[in-house]
Amino acid sequence: MLIETPEAMIKAIQALKVRGAPLIGVAAAWALAQWAKSDYQASKVETIAHALREARPTAVNLMIAIDRMLKAHAGSPSRDTLVQTAFDIFDEDVELANKMAANGAHLIHDGDSILTHCNTGGLATVGLGTALGVILKAHFDKKKIHVFVDETRPLLQGARLNAWELKKHGVPHTIICDNMAAPLMRSGRIDKIFVGSDRIALNGDFANKIGTYSVAVNAHHHKVPFYPVAPYTTIDFECATGHQIPIEERAHSEVFGVSLGDERIEWTPKDSKAFNPSFDVTPVELVTGLVTDIKYFSQAELKNNVLKSYKPSSRGTK
Amino acid sequence: MLIETPEAMIKAIQALKVRGAPLIGVAAAWALAQWAKSDYQASKVETIAHALREARPTAVNLMIAIDRMLKAHAGSPSRDTLVQTAFDIFDEDVELANKMAANGAHLIHDGDSILTHCNTGGLATVGLGTALGVILKAHFDKKKIHVFVDETRPLLQGARLNAWELKKHGVPHTIICDNMAAPLMRSGRIDKIFVGSDRIALNGDFANKIGTYSVAVNAHHHKVPFYPVAPYTTIDFECATGHQIPIEERAHSEVFGVSLGDERIEWTPKDSKAFNPSFDVTPVELVTGLVTDIKYFSQAELKNNVLKSYKPSSRGTK
Repeated sequence: MLIETPEAMIKAIQALKVRGAPLIGVAAAWALAQWAKSDYQASKVETIAHALREARPTAVNLMIAIDRMLKAHAGSPSRDTLVQTAFDIFDEDVELANKMAANGAHLIHDGDSILTHCNTGGLATVGLGTALGVILKAHFDKKKIHVFVDETRPLLQGARLNAWELKKHGVPHTIICDNMAAPLMRSGRIDKIFVGSDRIALNGDFANKIGTYSVAVNAHHHKVPFYPVAPYTTIDFECATGHQIPIEERAHSEVFGVSLGDERIEWTPKDSKAFNPSFDVTPVELVTGLVTDIKYFSQAELKNNVLKSYKPSSRGTK
Repeated sequence: MLIETPEAMIKAIQALKVRGAPLIGVAAAWALAQWAKSDYQASKVETIAHALREARPTAVNLMIAIDRMLKAHAGSPSRDTLVQTAFDIFDEDVELANKMAANGAHLIHDGDSILTHCNTGGLATVGLGTALGVILKAHFDKKKIHVFVDETRPLLQGARLNAWELKKHGVPHTIICDNMAAPLMRSGRIDKIFVGSDRIALNGDFANKIGTYSVAVNAHHHKVPFYPVAPYTTIDFECATGHQIPIEERAHSEVFGVSLGDERIEWTPKDSKAFNPSFDVTPVELVTGLVTDIKYFSQAELKNNVLKSYKPSSRGTK
């Protein structure tokens, strides 16, 4: 699939052909740069940027990447600024993944059995990934691990994509339905849990793929350490708590069945109704700690609102 | 599908064409009676009965129904005994459902929003059902209710069967993926939860369809009342705690995709591995109360091992 226009990128993001919070941000920046290369008009940049920015509502990486493109362009309005900034965002994303993996490395020990939800690897970012990046680094470091892969209904990003990435890298893993994680925890077969994030509030609450919250509640009940992993571009420095994170609701048909290529099976009675939030919010009380490219934050640090002191303008990294 | 032999019934039970703990018991008794009508040989009764009894390991109703057939036959060895006992079991099952619905009626109030898991209605029993029977009675009693239906991966008994039963009876309902129940509880949209059971231990621990335990943990965390509903034939009077309940593990292919009639979609990478327990065990600590045909048991009563005093031989009802 070749995406040649911002409109095509918006459609691809909405259809989840381009997905994963970090990747959406990079891809939208590149779509704007690609448009600038062929059709640059300074007066149209804002309009096109805002359309891209609104493709999906929950992942803040998209807003942050586009805002960065607009800020750079406002400072130095040219085609080259947009192209260069998009390259910078891409390169930075690779680097962020390496830093997250390094900052999370101490959390995984030889022999660990790890649960993860949704897809958070190279198919969701441009680098090694977020949660899967931390897991893969443990594997590359020769730690012996086993990964339980939540299939992640309704769109099965775990069973389709995370399993594929783990297989590609030779990491031993077992696919489970989302509702099987709880008895695994009860029987002591999960040592720790890593998940990605689509938006982190300043108090440490975070949004991630639907199903994450249920995993977090079960982790808390069974005293299994639970870690979200995300780059600083996932932190929403304008968002005080998880209550302010908008949650995208998607088509009921995603719940009614599955599609794969041209094939589709629907199993619900005709004219059924569904509820299909694409994300849920996990409060900081259920978070053991947050792995970022900046550093590892403990729950106590998050609750102290320490994240706000890392706002990019006050860090001078951006 | 016409089932004409015990062997065919065993296959139908194993393939889940006949499913639901109470229905399995009734169906196995009928298969034995059907065989007796055409091919009765006193010396073969035990062998055929034992094969039926072992068709699936978790639902104790199956064992109890077959044991009742064998006990009756031992007391009065004849074809007619088997046929009459099978009819008695069938009739009793209808009556048990009505009693459960009556004993659970006080738990549902006008305006309640109810979550349920798996299928527990007329497709899983020969009467009104267990959990769904209680819910349907509230609807028949003109209480205004809304039901959230867990789809119940991997075999989707909620989305396929419970939704169909609710639709048939005109009960307003919404289908959700199993992992969406937790955020609904967090936002206060679930008032109470009713589920079925496949085996209840004497201390109140119980086994039910995989996914029930995760619902129970979330119910506990969010302080949402959580009620299993089952007839006395689901109580295993030989089983002290949930640790002794055998959990059936089924084919990995159930996790890898879905089948509907002749259609099948698989979404996992080739040669994937899965974990596929068909049931999980919920400890009594997470149970608000148990609805049975005998009476409603509070958690405190269950923890006091009150169930053992209802053993059929000491009640004289069997």
